[in-house]
Amino acid sequence: MEYQYLDSEKVRHFSEAVFCYHGLSEEHSKTVVDVLLTADLLGIESHGIQRLIRYHKALSAGQIQPDVNIITVKETPISATLDANQCMGHISSTYAMNLAIKKAKETGIGMVAVRNSTHFGIAGYYTRMALQHNLAGFATTNTEQIGVPTFGKQPMIGTNPLAFSMPAEPYPFWFDSATTVVTHGKIEICQKAGKQLEHEWAVDENGAESLDPAHVRSNIRNRRNGGILPLGGIGTAHGGHKGYGFAMVAEICSSIWAGGPTCPHMADGKGKECTSHFFAAIDPGLFGDKDSMIRELSIYMQEIRDSEKADGHDRIYTHGELDWISFEEKKKNGIPVQLPTVEEMKAISSVTGIAFDI
Amino acid sequence: MEYQYLDSEKVRHFSEAVFCYHGLSEEHSKTVVDVLLTADLLGIESHGIQRLIRYHKALSAGQIQPDVNIITVKETPISATLDANQCMGHISSTYAMNLAIKKAKETGIGMVAVRNSTHFGIAGYYTRMALQHNLAGFATTNTEQIGVPTFGKQPMIGTNPLAFSMPAEPYPFWFDSATTVVTHGKIEICQKAGKQLEHEWAVDENGAESLDPAHVRSNIRNRRNGGILPLGGIGTAHGGHKGYGFAMVAEICSSIWAGGPTCPHMADGKGKECTSHFFAAIDPGLFGDKDSMIRELSIYMQEIRDSEKADGHDRIYTHGELDWISFEEKKKNGIPVQLPTVEEMKAISSVTGIAFDI
Repeated sequence: MEYQYLDSEKVRHFSEAVFCYHGLSEEHSKTVVDVLLTADLLGIESHGIQRLIRYHKALSAGQIQPDVNIITVKETPISATLDANQCMGHISSTYAMNLAIKKAKETGIGMVAVRNSTHFGIAGYYTRMALQHNLAGFATTNTEQIGVPTFGKQPMIGTNPLAFSMPAEPYPFWFDSATTVVTHGKIEICQKAGKQLEHEWAVDENGAESLDPAHVRSNIRNRRNGGILPLGGIGTAHGGHKGYGFAMVAEICSSIWAGGPTCPHMADGKGKECTSHFFAAIDPGLFGDKDSMIRELSIYMQEIRDSEKADGHDRIYTHGELDWISFEEKKKNGIPVQLPTVEEMKAISSVTGIAFDI
Repeated sequence: MEYQYLDSEKVRHFSEAVFCYHGLSEEHSKTVVDVLLTADLLGIESHGIQRLIRYHKALSAGQIQPDVNIITVKETPISATLDANQCMGHISSTYAMNLAIKKAKETGIGMVAVRNSTHFGIAGYYTRMALQHNLAGFATTNTEQIGVPTFGKQPMIGTNPLAFSMPAEPYPFWFDSATTVVTHGKIEICQKAGKQLEHEWAVDENGAESLDPAHVRSNIRNRRNGGILPLGGIGTAHGGHKGYGFAMVAEICSSIWAGGPTCPHMADGKGKECTSHFFAAIDPGLFGDKDSMIRELSIYMQEIRDSEKADGHDRIYTHGELDWISFEEKKKNGIPVQLPTVEEMKAISSVTGIAFDI
């Protein structure tokens, strides 16, 4: 796949103008684009600006409403429940995490459940917001059913990511993990590359392991049985029941607490999805001296990075390290964008009249 | 292995008397024994009453102090930090979760970090306490280093369990998972059974996969390199970096927040360990109508149990289902105790003079 390196700030201005063109306010346009571009800068291209065309089309077709009408259903000094009224998930989620952060600064913790939302991008964007306020962060969401429970063949669980972060130096602990063994995107990459899947990634319509990405994706697209396995793989020998359990934790914190539909019921089959999220910001200072906690965690993560490597490896990473390095590097040298995505942006430019001088 | 079925209440009375004999108060004896026996009743024999001999010996040798002097280091309406002063982990942890439950009833959440404690048994005992008050529960602990980080060969992480529970009918969601692919106990069972390990469970002193339980255990015992892999196995192909990340989440919530030593520094090599725990009780009523949440979760878990099974399987479980069934069954029919454990109890009886008429 060929890439062109684009200046992230130029992409930002272009993309913000596209969302404004579709009727989003300047503030909301900035929010959505920051979520997308942060993914690119952190090196998570799948959730980045390559999705611009998808949003452009959905907004053009009226499938996404540019209006934002987030309603507070319930609120306490430490919590809130929001109804996002089907606004873009990036907007409701940023709003929710900002509210959680505000409450955490006042009380030590803020927990915000969101229902009736849509896809929110990377869960880690929101825990990164907590880091920017020197707080620990937690974020999760349910997603459409794409995974099978242990011993099952019918998709009943989502990729349901769990993200957690805690300040540290020189890199924070920043962990954002689908609770399936891989995401749909990884299956797609294998198919594009003409490669077989790894063992214990996915099952076919009989619940038996499948190494064929095209077959697995066809089943997912056509809502047949089969799907992606939980973290830990097939059966229980490698802990598949554990990944399935973590997916349930994400589902409970999001749909069950927010009062939204559970994973098998969140899509109406006509493109409308009804996603739930959950966010928490926690001030570790509740428990003791925050500076010394950050120092101890920084020491521990450095000890891990410095620990002895397995033969054939010369580096051990901590979670967030590569992403933070990527962010600074791509901020300076540009974000890699696939040529078809560049072409899509040019097409958007010619339809909207927004200059694409990137 | 041969088993004898013992009446759990008779085992309870005998074991409580043993702890009282060693100087624990009646209340603390009841607490420790309830944690152990609950593990047996839930079917988790490894953490059950078979450990009585270990505690009997350690108390006899003065390695465990019967005195309990838990100090509150910091407290807010939603949180507390405790110094357990090396008391038995079951006692400090039950105290901590009861405090978290009290705070959750008053404010909606209670979070309690504990440092300077010892092994606390099963993490799920404490989330089960929250269930008994119709609350969601979270519990975690750090443990001695026994696991290797992704691409590493030096043990730098613990089995660090994460446990989470939420009320539901007829079984709650009750999930208690080591963040390593398996616990040390499973390696031990393979060795006793003369079986090889499964692939991607453990690595040798070079960081290469090892299927030899004796070799892996010898490295662990002698504090050489090698150890158990994170959930997700070796490298990143099956998500080993995710299990490693979940282990870090447990470490941050326990040692970092409580102000205790991190995993590689918690043992002094002379048998003294300095464990940290973290407990939270959360009232889901913070976010909406709790009864309707419990109903929705119960429906979703029933849908999963009823969903289509993989070929060759006739049942899909939800987390907590088997354990709750086991509890009722064993309460009625007795707990299975290995014959050597029965002999150990008889020996304790003859030393202490406590009647063993089980």
